[in-house]
This record gives sequence, C-alpha cells and structure tokens, in this order.
Amino acid sequence: MTEYTAFKVELTDNIAHVQINRPEKINAMNAAFWEELVQIFQWIDDTDAVRVVVLSGAGKHFSSGIDLMMLAALAQQLGKDVGRNARVMRRTILRLQGSFNAVDNCRKPVLAAIQGYCIGGAIDLVSACDMRYCASDAQFSIKEIDMGMAADVGTLQRLPRIIGDGIMRELAYTGRMVDAQEALRIGLVNRVYDDQAALLDGVFAIAREIAAKSPIAVAGTKEMISYMRDHRIDDGLEYIATWNAAMLQSEDLRVAMAAHMSKQQPTFAD
Amino acid sequence: MTEYTAFKVELTDNIAHVQINRPEKINAMNAAFWEELVQIFQWIDDTDAVRVVVLSGAGKHFSSGIDLMMLAALAQQLGKDVGRNARVMRRTILRLQGSFNAVDNCRKPVLAAIQGYCIGGAIDLVSACDMRYCASDAQFSIKEIDMGMAADVGTLQRLPRIIGDGIMRELAYTGRMVDAQEALRIGLVNRVYDDQAALLDGVFAIAREIAAKSPIAVAGTKEMISYMRDHRIDDGLEYIATWNAAMLQSEDLRVAMAAHMSKQQPTFAD
Amino acid sequence: MTEYTAFKVELTDNIAHVQINRPEKINAMNAAFWEELVQIFQWIDDTDAVRVVVLSGAGKHFSSGIDLMMLAALAQQLGKDVGRNARVMRRTILRLQGSFNAVDNCRKPVLAAIQGYCIGGAIDLVSACDMRYCASDAQFSIKEIDMGMAADVGTLQRLPRIIGDGIMRELAYTGRMVDAQEALRIGLVNRVYDDQAALLDGVFAIAREIAAKSPIAVAGTKEMISYMRDHRIDDGLEYIATWNAAMLQSEDLRVAMAAHMSKQQPTFAD
Amino acid sequence: MTEYTAFKVELTDNIAHVQINRPEKINAMNAAFWEELVQIFQWIDDTDAVRVVVLSGAGKHFSSGIDLMMLAALAQQLGKDVGRNARVMRRTILRLQGSFNAVDNCRKPVLAAIQGYCIGGAIDLVSACDMRYCASDAQFSIKEIDMGMAADVGTLQRLPRIIGDGIMRELAYTGRMVDAQEALRIGLVNRVYDDQAALLDGVFAIAREIAAKSPIAVAGTKEMISYMRDHRIDDGLEYIATWNAAMLQSEDLRVAMAAHMSKQQPTFAD
Amino acid sequence: MTEYTAFKVELTDNIAHVQINRPEKINAMNAAFWEELVQIFQWIDDTDAVRVVVLSGAGKHFSSGIDLMMLAALAQQLGKDVGRNARVMRRTILRLQGSFNAVDNCRKPVLAAIQGYCIGGAIDLVSACDMRYCASDAQFSIKEIDMGMAADVGTLQRLPRIIGDGIMRELAYTGRMVDAQEALRIGLVNRVYDDQAALLDGVFAIAREIAAKSPIAVAGTKEMISYMRDHRIDDGLEYIATWNAAMLQSEDLRVAMAAHMSKQQPTFAD
Amino acid sequence: MTEYTAFKVELTDNIAHVQINRPEKINAMNAAFWEELVQIFQWIDDTDAVRVVVLSGAGKHFSSGIDLMMLAALAQQLGKDVGRNARVMRRTILRLQGSFNAVDNCRKPVLAAIQGYCIGGAIDLVSACDMRYCASDAQFSIKEIDMGMAADVGTLQRLPRIIGDGIMRELAYTGRMVDAQEALRIGLVNRVYDDQAALLDGVFAIAREIAAKSPIAVAGTKEMISYMRDHRIDDGLEYIATWNAAMLQSEDLRVAMAAHMSKQQPTFAD
Repeated sequence: MTEYTAFKVELTDNIAHVQINRPEKINAMNAAFWEELVQIFQWIDDTDAVRVVVLSGAGKHFSSGIDLMMLAALAQQLGKDVGRNARVMRRTILRLQGSFNAVDNCRKPVLAAIQGYCIGGAIDLVSACDMRYCASDAQFSIKEIDMGMAADVGTLQRLPRIIGDGIMRELAYTGRMVDAQEALRIGLVNRVYDDQAALLDGVFAIAREIAAKSPIAVAGTKEMISYMRDHRIDDGLEYIATWNAAMLQSEDLRVAMAAHMSKQQPTFAD
Repeated sequence: MTEYTAFKVELTDNIAHVQINRPEKINAMNAAFWEELVQIFQWIDDTDAVRVVVLSGAGKHFSSGIDLMMLAALAQQLGKDVGRNARVMRRTILRLQGSFNAVDNCRKPVLAAIQGYCIGGAIDLVSACDMRYCASDAQFSIKEIDMGMAADVGTLQRLPRIIGDGIMRELAYTGRMVDAQEALRIGLVNRVYDDQAALLDGVFAIAREIAAKSPIAVAGTKEMISYMRDHRIDDGLEYIATWNAAMLQSEDLRVAMAAHMSKQQPTFAD
Repeated sequence: MTEYTAFKVELTDNIAHVQINRPEKINAMNAAFWEELVQIFQWIDDTDAVRVVVLSGAGKHFSSGIDLMMLAALAQQLGKDVGRNARVMRRTILRLQGSFNAVDNCRKPVLAAIQGYCIGGAIDLVSACDMRYCASDAQFSIKEIDMGMAADVGTLQRLPRIIGDGIMRELAYTGRMVDAQEALRIGLVNRVYDDQAALLDGVFAIAREIAAKSPIAVAGTKEMISYMRDHRIDDGLEYIATWNAAMLQSEDLRVAMAAHMSKQQPTFAD
Repeated sequence: MTEYTAFKVELTDNIAHVQINRPEKINAMNAAFWEELVQIFQWIDDTDAVRVVVLSGAGKHFSSGIDLMMLAALAQQLGKDVGRNARVMRRTILRLQGSFNAVDNCRKPVLAAIQGYCIGGAIDLVSACDMRYCASDAQFSIKEIDMGMAADVGTLQRLPRIIGDGIMRELAYTGRMVDAQEALRIGLVNRVYDDQAALLDGVFAIAREIAAKSPIAVAGTKEMISYMRDHRIDDGLEYIATWNAAMLQSEDLRVAMAAHMSKQQPTFAD
Repeated sequence: MTEYTAFKVELTDNIAHVQINRPEKINAMNAAFWEELVQIFQWIDDTDAVRVVVLSGAGKHFSSGIDLMMLAALAQQLGKDVGRNARVMRRTILRLQGSFNAVDNCRKPVLAAIQGYCIGGAIDLVSACDMRYCASDAQFSIKEIDMGMAADVGTLQRLPRIIGDGIMRELAYTGRMVDAQEALRIGLVNRVYDDQAALLDGVFAIAREIAAKSPIAVAGTKEMISYMRDHRIDDGLEYIATWNAAMLQSEDLRVAMAAHMSKQQPTFAD
Repeated sequence: MTEYTAFKVELTDNIAHVQINRPEKINAMNAAFWEELVQIFQWIDDTDAVRVVVLSGAGKHFSSGIDLMMLAALAQQLGKDVGRNARVMRRTILRLQGSFNAVDNCRKPVLAAIQGYCIGGAIDLVSACDMRYCASDAQFSIKEIDMGMAADVGTLQRLPRIIGDGIMRELAYTGRMVDAQEALRIGLVNRVYDDQAALLDGVFAIAREIAAKSPIAVAGTKEMISYMRDHRIDDGLEYIATWNAAMLQSEDLRVAMAAHMSKQQPTFAD
C-alpha cells in the first residue's frame, strides 16, 4: 500500500478505508490532499479487489475544508493582466474540481462517515460521495460564502440533487450551521449515529453488505444512478439496456440464482 | 371488457381498476403480464371514458417482481456468439421496458395501491406510476442487486426523481427492505393506510376526486409534470404556452367558471 | 422610489421589501400587477444597493392568484379563427410567464413571506422565489385544476424541483389544500412561524444575514444554483470555473480574509 | 412474404426492397400506407436476414406525399370543442409521425431511391432514411407550406441536420422546387444517376456492399450516427464504449481479421 | 411609422424593409443602433401586417460592425474592482446580445441583403437572420479576433449551425476575408447577385413569395426550424404535434385547399 | 524537448509541430502512440509559448490507423466471464478515446496536414483536430467497418458535425475511399494542396497567421466553437458573456486597439 501524507489508506475485506489524516489541522485540505486524492481513487478504480470505499476523517472533526495557506499560495500566482490571471484561475479551479470528480467518477460506492466539523470544501467533498452518514455531533456549513466567494469545487453543482432546492439556497446564501438532526431531515445524511465509534461500526456494516454483492451488479447500479442526475429517462433506459446486454451474460447471475435456490450466501469473484 | 390472464380490469365511474391477478404466485410478472400490460394501457389511452387508473395487486402482496421462470426462459434464447447474444438481450430489455413505459406515458393519472411485498420489478412498476399509496404492512426492496444484476426496467431511471439521491443509492446497493413508515418519510409513498381495505378506500377516494376534474386540464397537468422530469424550465414554459394556446379555447373553462359562479359542482365531458 | 398601484416597495438596509398591496382583493393579480412586477424587478436588478428581496402580501392573505376579471378580459380578445386565437393566447401566456421569470432571473435572492391563502397564481409566483417561509395559518392550493385548466405560469415547471414528484402530482391533480405543517414536511417552505408578525421578523432576519455577505459571492451562488436546475454537473463545474476566474480577482476575498483574521465583521461594497 | 396494398416488398440477398406501389395515384400516402409502413419495418427489424433496405416508388414518381382524401377524412373527426379537437389532432399527428419514426429507428440502413416528384410528405419520409440517391429528373418540394400548414411528420425536424440551415429555411418558407443537381449540391442526395434504371442499379450496388459487411458492425455504426444527431460528443463516446464492450467480443472481428490476413472476402452470419 | 436615427424602416405589401442607415459611417453599430433594433423588432413582432422582413444596409457596404467609439465608451464604465467590472461587462454583453436575439426570436422570416463589407458585428447580425443573400462584391470577415477578443454577440454561437465546422474555425481564428463565391460555396449565403440593385430585386421577390403564404404556416415553420437548432428530434416531433393541434384548426387550411381545388392563388388573413 | 518514440515534436515561433514518426509502419498507432499523445498534448496545454499546433505524419502517408498488433494484444486480456471482459473492454476503449480527447480538449488550435492514407483510427484522430488540410494524393476511409466493428474512438461522434449526415452514413457503412477533391467538396478538408511540400508550407502559413493573434482571443474563440457542438445557443451566449466578463479586461484589447490606430502589427504576450 502506498504511503500518503494527507491520508491513511487501508484495504480490508474488499473495503478501502480512506481516512483524511491531518487531525492536528482539523483535516484541512492542503496541496498534498488534492493530489493524493486523485492517486488514491485512481488506485481504487484500477483495483478489482476494492469493492466499496469508506471515507472518513481522523480525529474529532471530518474536515474544516480547504487550507487557507493553500489559498494564499494560489493568490501568489497572479500577475498584472486580468485576462491571463483569469486563465490561471480557471485552470486551477478545474484542477481542484478534478480531485473531487475522481471521487464522483469512482466505479465503486463511496460512503462518507462524518463527525464534528464538515465545512466549506468538506461539503463539496461529501457531495461527491454516494451516501453520507454522521455522528450526532456533526456540523455542516457551506462556508465559502463567508470567504467572499461562491463555492466552486462541487457543492453548488451536486448538493441540489441531494437536498431540497429551497433549503439548499438558504444554506448556501447564509452559510449557517446545520446539525445532525437537520441534516437527516433534509436528506443530507442517511442516518445519524450516537458517536464516532458507532458511526464507523454502522458505516462499515453497510459497506460489508455492499461488498458481498456482485461487483458487476453494483458497478452497473452506480453508473446508472449517477447517469440519471444529468440525463433523460429515455436515454437512461436505453443506456441500461445496452449495458446489461453484456452484463447479463456474466457468471454472476448464475451464481446469484444458484445461491437463491440453495438458500445460501453467494460468493462473487472480484 | 377484454379478459386477461394476469390482470383483472374494471371500469367504474371513469376509474379503471387494473389489478394484478396472480395472487397464488405473489403476483409475479410472467410473460402474459408484460404483454397484457401494454394492451391494457393502450385501451386506457384510447378510451376517453377512463379518466383515472388505480393499479393494485390481488391478495396479500402487491407483487414479488419478475417471474423467475420467465428469466430462465429468456436465458434459453442465448447462443454462442457474445455479440449476437447482446443484440438479443438488448432488444428483450427494451421490450420489457416498453411495458412500463406504457404506464408512464399513459395520458391519465395512475395511482398505485400497495400492500405486502413490493419487490424487484414491482418497484420498477410503481416508479412508473404517478403516485404511490400503501398499507402499513408494505415492504419495498430493490431486489435486483441480489440477482447479480443492475435493475433494468426503470427503477434506476425513475426512482431518483421521486426519492432523495442519498437514500436511493443505499437502497439500490444493499437491496434492504423499506417499511411503510420509511417509505412515507423518503417520499416513496404519499400516505400510509392502516390496512388493505382502508388503502383501497383511500386511493379510490382520491381517484374519484381527480375523475371529477376537467379531463383536458388533468391531461395537460400530467403532460407538463412528466415533461419536467427531463426538460429545462424555459422549455417547459414554452411547451405549456403552446399547449394551452389550444386548450384554453376548450369548453371546460367556461363550465368551470360557471360552476364557480353558481357555487355548484361542474360536470365535464370526457 | 416609484409608486405602484398593485405593490408597495421599500428599500431599507440593502433589503427591498416588495409587498403585494391589494388586501381588499385578497391581493388578486390584476393587469397592473403583472406589468409592475416586471418594472420592480428590473429596478432591483439594476440597483446595486438592493442585495436581497423580501416578497410579501399585505393583509390577511398572501394572494388568491390571478384576478378573474383579468381572465375574463383576456377571453374578450379572441375572435373566430382557432389558429389566430391560439397565436394570441400563446403570446399572452408567454407575456404573463415573463413577469414571474423576472422574479426567477433576478440576480439577488428573493424570500417569500406567506400568510393565509397562497392559491393558484400565487403558487406559481412563490415557486419562482429562492426560498419560502410561512405563518402557521398559511394555506396552499394549486387551484388552476378547478378552473378547468393546467397551470401555465410556472408552478408545473418549477415546483417539481422543490417538492417531491409524488406529492407534486397529487397536489396538482386534486388542487387540495396544504397547510403550513405539510408545506414544511414536503419542502415547500423552509420554516413555519407562529403568526404574520413573527414571520416578517424571521424573514427579515435571514434577509439581513444575506445582505451582510459579499454581493459578488451571493450573486455567483444564486446563478450557479439556478443553473443547476437545468444543466449537467460537468457543465455546472465548468461554468463556475469560468465565473470565478473573474470573481476570485475581486476585492471581496481580501476583505473577507482580513475580517476573518481580525475576527471582525467584514463590510462589502455593493 | 406478407402482401400489402400500398407497398410491394421483396427480400433478395439480404436486401429488402420496399416499393411504394400506387403509381396510378403518384404513390400518394393513403391510410393503408401509414399502417403498412409500420408493419413492414417491424418485420425488417425483427428479421436478421434483412441487412439493408432500399426504399423506392413504383412508376414515374417517387411520391406526391400525403393523400388529400385522407386529410379530408381526418378533418371529419373534429367536433365542436376546440380543446377536444386539439386532443384528437395531436394524437393523429403523433401516430402519423410514428410511421416515419419506424423508418428512422430501423436498425438497418435504409437507402431511398428517388425519381420524379418527391413532394410534401415524401420529403418527410426520405428525411427519415439513412441516405438519399436520385435520378436526374427528380424534383423536391416542401409542399406543406402551400397547404396552409407547417410540415408535421418530420421534415422540419430531420432535414436541418442533413442540409444547411440557410437553404433549409428558404425551401421551407417558399416551397419552391429543387432539382437533382441542386439537391446534390446542398447535400440532400449523395449522388445523381442518369435515369431510373441507373438509379436502381446504383443504389442496389451500394446496398450489396453494405450487406456484405458485419451486420453487428453496421448496426452499431447506425446506432451511433443516429444517436449523435441529438447527443453530446462525450455522451456518444461513453455510449459506443459501452456498446462495443459487448460487441467487440463477437465472432465477427475474428472473421474479419482472418479474411484480412488471407486476403479473402469475409462472410458474416446474419 | 416611428422615426429612427440608425435605421430607415418601411412597410409595403406586408414586407418590412429595415435598413441600417448610417452610410457615412459604413453603417457602424452605435449606441442608438442597438436600442432601436430592439424597438423595431418588437414592433415587427406585434404587427400582424408584417409577414416578412428584409434587412439591408444603406450605401456601398452592409456594415463594418460595432462602432469603435461605442466600445471606448463602454471601457469608461470600468472601475477598480475586477469582480465588479466583470459584473458590468457581463451585463453589457448580455444586453448587446439581446438586440440580436430580438432578430433571431422574431416570429417572421428575416432575409439579409448584403453588399460590400459585412464585418465583425455584422456577421453576428446576419447569423441571427433566417437567410442571407449577397451581391458579388460582398466581403465577410469575423474581425473580432483582430481586436484581441473572442466574438461575443452571436457569431460563434449561430454560425457553426450554418456553415461547416472546419471552415468555421479557420475563419474565426484567422479573421480572413471571404468573398461572395466562397460564401455561397460554404453555405453562408443562399445566392449571389450581380450587384446591389439585382440583390434587392431578388431578395424582395423571395420576400413577396413568402408574404403570400399563410402567416400561420410560416410562423409555425420558423418556430420549428429554429427550435431544431437546439433540441432533439423526438422533442421537435412532439412540439410540432402540440403546435399543430391548434393550428390545423385554422381557416388557412380550408383557404389553401379551396384555392388548390380551384387552381387559384389563395389569400390569407394577416 | 522530451523525446518520444512514436512522434517527433518541435516548437518554433510559437507553433508546435507534432509529427507521427513511424513512417516504416505507415504511422500505425501502437501502444506508445496512444500514451505519448496524451503527454504531448498535456505539455502543449501547459506551455503558454505554444499557440498553435500542426499535426502531420512522416513519410508518404499520414497514418494507417490503429496497429493491428496492438489490437491483438488487447484481445489477450480477455478471460472467460463475458461481464468481466466487458468491464475490461469498456475501460480500454475509454482510455484510447482519452488520447484523442486530449487533442480535442487542447486549448490551442490544432491543424492536421494530411497526405496519402488517412485510414481507420487516423480519421478518428483528424476529426478531433480543429481544421484539416490535405495534399492531392490523400485518401480517406472509415476502415473500421471492414474490421467487423463500429468505429469507437471518435469518428462516429465528431465527424457528423463536420460533414453532411447523408454522406457521413454512406462512408461509415461502406468504408469506401474518399479522395482529396471529394474531401474538399464534403467539407472534410478546408483546402487541397498540390503535394506534401505545398501542404506543409500552406498549413504553416495559416498556423503563423493564428500564432500572431492574441492567444487570449484565440483560446476563447476555440472554447466557444467547441462548446457549440454540444450546447444550445442561449447557453452559448451566456457562456461567452461570462467568459468575456474577465477576458475583455485583458491587456490584449488595448494592444490590438493601439496597433489598429497606428496601422501596425500588434504583438501579444503569450
């Protein structure tokens, strides 16, 4: 397993545990964070043995978002010409977005386990995950508005498809804190656990359940749900028909059917 | 009224009651089911006297989804060449999807009344209905994942527009059971009734309410809401303007206005 | 400040209060209403000193929707040829839609404060606002169905992106009343206040909070959320990157950062 | 082979020749025409032995478009209520469109061979074909404008993707005649032949060439080109990747490769 | 007829002749030009007696594009803050675009008659017209590239749908001159006339032809072709079906049919 | 300058010359080709000194397309399970597509200079370039159909936006050769040169012309034209307005204006 400076990564029982590991900095997202995230998810995507991903943050908080030092460094790149500065800024933003796109595009489900602060860039990150679960002390805030800017690494694009439009706007315009119970009520998280230990237990239990399914079936399911955020129903129906034209010829259907007949747990190849 | 083998169909007071009628097989969807469904909804679409549809299942359960015998028969069609098999599979899936498209495209509102199991293909079916109501014993599961396959007749396409994206993924990846109360909370059903009798009473009451409205107005309303699942707001506005350019010249507005003035119930032609 | 016949408009502390002001007619939307609304929002859009808008209704009710006298006047325009009538109707509908588009397209957040009746055209109107808040006596109804017509000035286009698809259809087909608590549960409003006074206090408090943020950041945030109702995630990401390429070169980031460092409230230029 | 009243259909060497066969009526499209066309293309789609289709018209002219008798019959269906008439008209138009959609959606290439008049509905029809070839006496006209109506069975939708936008509008607004040479220059036809005999010879030669290719490869190619009329490049790339994930596992690649190596003509299964 | 400073407008025989009328300035587009264009096309759209529009330029040249004095004035509006400047620029560009959108959205066909220079903004303008015709001395150039900017009032958006993608890019990157014959070959104009007199004669002859058609039919035809630049074929088919559901109930079909039977010229109401 | 095995890359006067350099293999695309192409265009995109790219092939032919040895190697990766094979194939195709996407997404114009064979994968490649120029001996063929497969690295997605739909289908279904003159007539190339020397002279002359323009203006122009292949006109207009909100604040406009006033050639920074 490669070593990372901003993350700790482990693979057990087909579940990759990706942990942001800068607890002393409230897991703020520094330059290494953005680069390593891409590498980690490239590895996940390429490794058939990984079937599910749990994304968590070490320490008391999930993450306080982008590291302000890094923002300051970015500002240093700018020169005198507004047009050429815009060229630089645009490319930089696209590159940072790319790190969270790597999470979104990952072919395996990604489950976020959130405790404490989940602020600014951290919301952008968990919006790119498949599901979100939190401890009762979790606090969410679309903090970018207080930095004098519109959030630009994914929250405004992905979150409206997860929570309601009306509450989305209130949170984005005010940046106010949302606690665990409200997060549950508005659909931001699927479940609230008592504390961080219960949270990790609960999320890993769900992850194990998913890891036991056919990876072919799970990958197709994720592809289709992600596709439907942006596509028409008729296009989606045609897409799954084309997809399953190959995938229904897989062994996994026979394995599943046999297990069903014999009332046993099926075991699927990676 | 035509006789069907997999359904019982009745028309009373402008309401068509379409009942899956294989209770001894937990209303599993066999070959006849898929074909007859198209015929039934063709008839509904062509018959102005039908203004609303109630879709239910006979017996203790709504439906256990696709008949495994039918799946096995489909597998028989496959030969040696992967490419030609894919051609066959793709066409078969598109044909099955077509049966539920007939429900979705029906110009009249379709209300699903659900008790007991609503599993696998049954979720695909009720996702194609306008509204869903259930008895307190209802149980929902996106079961396809346990057959080693991604659901391919509509659940993954239509359900994300009905329930939240985060919970959608959890249910699709795990296939876990959802009970009536959770179904209500996540927006899968509009209301939970105590038992099957109360369910049918309640759903028919809503159906009667809709049947008393102008069928021209109801058809336009359905067309627009369905359209908005896939289209832009500006396109939707232009579409309703074009639609109503004709429909506001209908008698029904005068009938409605006159009834409003005289404080009486309006009566609309089919 | 211009005088209007159907509205009262005030600007205090960067907040424009736009009040429908025909309480004796339950704030029914007459010909002046539709024209003045466009003028008011044109002024709001052009006036940098306006940072947030509160939209309310004078008297006991928010609004009973379109004025029936106006509908009758429209009917007068029709002649003998169905085709030419359709041409007139289509243009008229597009023009009325334009009034609510002016609200939707406004570059500043619009908060609706709703008490009593919010019926028919009034739902079309509040669907075009950013957020909705109500008093406990609020009552909502998609009343157009009872006029023998499909709603055609925005409800069917915008509301499905705010509330769930299943409940949307029930409300649109039946026209039944929704009270404040149900409105909260289905996401139609963000919060319910005890009475009209508490409602205005609460909404103005939120408005003040937003008015204190960077107007550059708020405008960008609104543009992006509105954009995402109709566009793909990848398009949205590219759009914000292009947008922020200029906007991150604004003073407001430095102002915000300095305030953050000194733990003081930032003050942003209009 | 089924017998048809408006068509003559033959299958030779994997090529279906579909000939409009009412030369005494200039191949005007009567009620039988619209129904039989759907049946014929259903049969083509279901019959693997058909690999290419040639569509032609018997006699001196390809077709004069819709039969005016049929239009008159349609007008008979209308009653008093404008709204209900609109409902009838809309369904009728959609049904007629469906006949040409059957040509467009056919999974095999359709080559139109055109001599003499190709007018009104006939342009709608050939716009739904893959390629168009004509004799030097061919004459094209978007005649609907002279019937007081906008063309509504496909010309205005499909032809702008075939010929340039500027000339498209001139032809649609004026209905003027286009001769064979202009048709070639604007891309309406691919080639002009001296006379009808040369036309059929030439078109059948191309058809034979296509019939000798892998039907799996041809079907995939058609699906992709048709898809690209309406979809984004990135969606198209993803779609072909998913499609070929199955199809590249077909025998046909090995057959083609072996033939390539041995410098022989490959022979592909249907 | 209103008087304009940058235009001369005449209405004869249902044809509005809109002439850019600053020949001493090579018809450069000054501030008045942009405002008056909107007013003129608003009047055209509202006036049923106008059925076709001819757009031309007085003097030796069609137009040299935007007035450099106006550009300089715009630059004056900018202040110190890049973000607020961007806000101003964006609104200004959108407003200028709006003037050409008024041409594009006009419900009647607009024919451009072009002689001499057609440069920079003038290409943006004629790209928003339905058809383009020119004299043999016409010269076209996408001149914006030589001003150090990407064209932003419509050329880059509309021209690729009129001429081929490959030649489009060459012209836009190099800004090189295109003469009348090349313009014809690449589809930029529909026809080349010997000189300006022949040009106006020819264009008015086509305009008269269109003005003699049913205005209901022409408007529908234009709406559909414009719609197809941006929409899917299936959406287009549904749109025309909905549109014609009303329009086929117009008198104009009967007028056309009667004229057809009696071999006479039909006369349609405005 | 990095050394490559399949390419020769030079940078002179802001023009990068990327030459496929396997003349002894007719420039067939081997494994190194696909990887190095991505690296080269990454470097081009990151290097402001590169303003234009010329893409050519060393020797008598441009390229014969994908290396058959490589295809054979890919076939080796497949195992027993059709589903898992499909997973591998899909990823491989997406990866190969990525190499040509790198060309398409490059922020600088790419001019293809083509002599001799341009076959199979070579058409996919030049379809991803901005413009195509050829020598009189050029020969084009969509050869994939003869390998028993649908082309899957871009031809079917990008070429229909460059040449007409009717001829596109003929070429894709038959795979027949297209010579230089036909290529010019159908818009596949912009110009035909007598021989390879004249071709390179001509293309470099155009490249130099583009390299002398403002790189900010050229980049914006390319972004907009590429965007319009897939987006609506209204979206495109809004996008350029947002883009130019920053870019019109660039020095380059002042440089261009000053040069225009003084009748001198402007010199723009990279």
